[in-house]
Amino acid sequence: MQGRDIRTGGGRLTVVGTGPGSVDHMTPAARSALEQADTIVGYGTYLDLIRDTFPDKELVTTGMTREVERCREAMDLAESGRHVALVSGGDPGIYAMAGLVLELAETRNSSLPIDIIPGIAALNACAARLGAPLMHDFAAVSLSDLLTPWEKITARLDAAAAADFVIVLYNPKSKRRTGHIEVARDIVLKYRPPETPVGIVTGAMRDHETVVITTLGQMLENEIGMQSCVIIGNTATRVWKHLMITPRGYGSKYALEEPEGPVP
Amino acid sequence: MQGRDIRTGGGRLTVVGTGPGSVDHMTPAARSALEQADTIVGYGTYLDLIRDTFPDKELVTTGMTREVERCREAMDLAESGRHVALVSGGDPGIYAMAGLVLELAETRNSSLPIDIIPGIAALNACAARLGAPLMHDFAAVSLSDLLTPWEKITARLDAAAAADFVIVLYNPKSKRRTGHIEVARDIVLKYRPPETPVGIVTGAMRDHETVVITTLGQMLENEIGMQSCVIIGNTATRVWKHLMITPRGYGSKYALEEPEGPVP
Repeated sequence: MQGRDIRTGGGRLTVVGTGPGSVDHMTPAARSALEQADTIVGYGTYLDLIRDTFPDKELVTTGMTREVERCREAMDLAESGRHVALVSGGDPGIYAMAGLVLELAETRNSSLPIDIIPGIAALNACAARLGAPLMHDFAAVSLSDLLTPWEKITARLDAAAAADFVIVLYNPKSKRRTGHIEVARDIVLKYRPPETPVGIVTGAMRDHETVVITTLGQMLENEIGMQSCVIIGNTATRVWKHLMITPRGYGSKYALEEPEGPVP
Repeated sequence: MQGRDIRTGGGRLTVVGTGPGSVDHMTPAARSALEQADTIVGYGTYLDLIRDTFPDKELVTTGMTREVERCREAMDLAESGRHVALVSGGDPGIYAMAGLVLELAETRNSSLPIDIIPGIAALNACAARLGAPLMHDFAAVSLSDLLTPWEKITARLDAAAAADFVIVLYNPKSKRRTGHIEVARDIVLKYRPPETPVGIVTGAMRDHETVVITTLGQMLENEIGMQSCVIIGNTATRVWKHLMITPRGYGSKYALEEPEGPVP
């Protein structure tokens, strides 16, 4: 972040992506940010992963759904002069805490230095477990309509399905919201055959991780929950040995041409 | 990967995401995979980052555009009984090496054990540098038409723009391909005002990193190259203190409702 001005008694706030469950997937940059912090703020389950690694740190924990409260508390502590790390599972930059922190800082017109350390997001982790589903253009859509009109979500699903994007579904299902995933499947079925490969990863990189490769037609016969991420293949995605492969191109099955390098 | 059968004399292939430029963003899982390998295969620039950390490893390097050759070589070495790590900058699972490796393995009907270790991708790294642009639904589109018909790419840009996705452009420009980014901008301009925030990050997390916040109308006045990743905001994205903020919802500017947690 450029243009920092330090008028906060040395306080600062770092939003730290700790990646999926295991510390094996937390970057050195994230670890170092936690080491340097006076206080670590986060949701209980994520902090449990950190507690053993940093036994001497002050930890401030809140409930799962108390995201706004957690950000406020982290910002209050930082503005009082502390160096605070706010922990976000996965990547704080993808459907997570980075935006809330910046929205809050904007509301307060805060001059607090704020840094964001990226992490391995659910989509990175789940793609790795499923093989190679994200080799071509993809769209990430959250099925939660808590802050977004449902009509906007279904319009996006329709657009993504029609344009043959691989589709990554975040928040596919909760106790309260069980029907959205059915609607999502039906929308994609308008454009893709029921044999289209679908991957469901639950609790990626954790002890209780499950990985399922199924099809668009049969996906709802599988367990899908709060910790699941669902990836629906495009019309070229195929399955080989329980792995999803989305080919890089639409030419021959195995394109021998040399592509340009992707952005590293 | 499930269902491994070991008929390859102990050889194995691990596709390792080393993240953006700096080793600060390489996970312990990736590092450990490199440590365990007999041979590390990769593109020169990525290997330079690793050479100092693992001075005793056998390194096999190929040119930037020799992706297929590199995969073949890695697979040949693994099938001869070696434990091979194939290095991919960023995340091998996003527009990168994971798919090519699995396509090759499928063609050979290989029984080699293959693992994929996710990394911080360009989109994770660039989002962190830009603030919080990916707080809501987004679409990743590569502008390279080497393996994909250009009409398919423009159709996807149109669909993503019309449905108000945040848009992440991979491969926005190369020496040979300079006009695609102009077409992309014009397509998005059909649906979004010229004031729409756009972020351009080049060489994310490297020494020569540049971060630019501009607008849809003016984006082409900035340097964009092979190592750039471009993020175009949705209709709600705004800029605060040189940072992009895409709000999590479409309700009040600062939604105080407590959301459900994202997939961690």
